[in-house]
Amino acid sequence: MYRTRVYYQDTDAGGVVYYANYLKLFEKSWFEYLLSCGISLPEWEEQGTYVLVKRVELDLLDKSRYGDELETHTTVTDVKNAQFTLAHVVSRDGKPVTRGQTFMVCVDGTGKPKRMPEDFKTRLLACQSISATTT
Amino acid sequence: MYRTRVYYQDTDAGGVVYYANYLKLFEKSWFEYLLSCGISLPEWEEQGTYVLVKRVELDLLDKSRYGDELETHTTVTDVKNAQFTLAHVVSRDGKPVTRGQTFMVCVDGTGKPKRMPEDFKTRLLACQSISATTT
Amino acid sequence: MYRTRVYYQDTDAGGVVYYANYLKLFEKSWFEYLLSCGISLPEWEEQGTYVLVKRVELDLLDKSRYGDELETHTTVTDVKNAQFTLAHVVSRDGKPVTRGQTFMVCVDGTGKPKRMPEDFKTRLLACQSISATTT
Amino acid sequence: MYRTRVYYQDTDAGGVVYYANYLKLFEKSWFEYLLSCGISLPEWEEQGTYVLVKRVELDLLDKSRYGDELETHTTVTDVKNAQFTLAHVVSRDGKPVTRGQTFMVCVDGTGKPKRMPEDFKTRLLACQSISATTT
Repeated sequence: MYRTRVYYQDTDAGGVVYYANYLKLFEKSWFEYLLSCGISLPEWEEQGTYVLVKRVELDLLDKSRYGDELETHTTVTDVKNAQFTLAHVVSRDGKPVTRGQTFMVCVDGTGKPKRMPEDFKTRLLACQSISATTT
Repeated sequence: MYRTRVYYQDTDAGGVVYYANYLKLFEKSWFEYLLSCGISLPEWEEQGTYVLVKRVELDLLDKSRYGDELETHTTVTDVKNAQFTLAHVVSRDGKPVTRGQTFMVCVDGTGKPKRMPEDFKTRLLACQSISATTT
Repeated sequence: MYRTRVYYQDTDAGGVVYYANYLKLFEKSWFEYLLSCGISLPEWEEQGTYVLVKRVELDLLDKSRYGDELETHTTVTDVKNAQFTLAHVVSRDGKPVTRGQTFMVCVDGTGKPKRMPEDFKTRLLACQSISATTT
Repeated sequence: MYRTRVYYQDTDAGGVVYYANYLKLFEKSWFEYLLSCGISLPEWEEQGTYVLVKRVELDLLDKSRYGDELETHTTVTDVKNAQFTLAHVVSRDGKPVTRGQTFMVCVDGTGKPKRMPEDFKTRLLACQSISATTT
C-alpha cells in the first residue's frame, strides 16, 4: 500500500491529477507491495532479474485534486512462469478513483524474457493466496 | 503526428523510456492530431467543452533509448455522442515501440459528461473517414 | 520533512535521480513543512492566497539511485511582506545529496503579488524561529 | 533552440507550467543546442564522456498556459577544463518567461570529473564565440 497526498506536481491545468501520473502511483504501490511480499526489486536486479511492464489498463473513475489524500492498493492476480499480473486501486476516503492492471514480465540483463527465479515465484504465489483470502 | 527525440527526462535507470511517459507522448500526439483535424482543445475549453481520458490501454512492444527518434501517430477510431476513441502508435524507424488506445469523454466545466458540440463531432468524423481510407 | 524511496520514475538512463526531480521533492517537502507550521496551502488557496516560486537555486552534491531512501528537510530562512525563502536539503543516510533554495511570493487569484495575510506570516515567523534555534 | 507547445502534462492546478518542468525544457534545449554545435551527447556517452548538472539557477518571470507556444534558447557562456556553463531563456512571443543557468561537469563512466576531450572543448568554444558575436 502506498499513501500520498496530491501535490501540485501531480495535477494539471484541469485542476485534477494528470492521467499518466496514476501510472506513477501504480509503480510506487507495486514496489512497496512486492517488498511486503519479501521481493525487493532493486536486490533482484543485482542478481540479474528485472521486471518490465508489458501492458497497462487504466480506468479513470473519479477526479482527485490538490491536497487530496490517496491510497493505492496493489495485489497480484495471476502468476505464470515468466509473467505476473498486478491489480491496482487508487482510493480517496475509501472510494475508488482509478483502477488498473499492469502485466509484468521477468527479463534478464539483456532484456530477454526469463523464467522467474523459484524464490521470486514462491513469494509471489504466497502473496497472491493472502490477497485471495482477504478480498 | 508528434516527432521527438528521447531525452534523459524520458528514461529511467533501466536505460529505456519509463512506461508512464508513453502516455505523455500520446497526449502530445492527440493534441497535434486533433489540431490537424481543425479541433483546438484549448479553444474548445474556452467555450466550455473539455475532453477527459476515461480509459487507457497501453502495450509496450519494444524499448526506446536516450537519443532515439520517435514518431507518435494518432487516429480516431470511434465516435459516439459524448465519447470518442483514439489509437496511438509510437514508432522508431518505422517499427512500433508501443501501441495504445485512449477512450475520451466530453465534459462541461463542472466535469459532467455532455454531448459533443456538432462542429466538434463533424470534424472528428471527417478525420476518422480520412484515417479509414489511408490505413 | 518528506521521506521517500527512489523509484524508477525518479531516475534516468544515467542510473541516478533526474535533476529536475529534486524540485519535485522540494515541493513535497515544503508542503509538509508548511503544514507542520499550521499552513495548509490548499486551504489558503480557497481563501484567495496562492504561493508561487519566483526563483530556484539547486546544488547537486551526490547521486541517489533506485531504491535509495531519501529525506528532504525544509526550513524557512527569510520572511518579508509578500515573499519568503525556503531552504531544502535532500539527504541519504544523513549525508546531503542536494541542497536548494526556493524564493516564494504570495499572489492573489489573478496572479498579482499581495501582502501575505497576518496569520500566514505569524505562523511562518514562528516556524522560522524554531528552525533558527534547532539548527 | 527547442520549440514546443504547452500540453496538459506541463501544467499544474494553478493553470500554468509547473516550475520543475522548465528544467525539462532546459534539457531538451541544451541537447539540441549542443547537437547544433556538433556535440551529440549520446555519442559522447558511448565514448565514456558523460555530462552532469552540478548547479541550477532558475528565475520565473512570467506564466505560460496550456496551448502556449514556447521557444527555449541555450548558449554556452563559460568553458573550463572539466566544466561549462549554459544559459537558457524560455520565451513566448519573444518575451522571456523564464531564464536559467545550468552548470555542467564532464565525468567518466564511474562518475568522476574528467577533463573534457579536446574535440568536445573545441566545439564548445566555437559555439561560445558564435553566441558572443550574435547576442
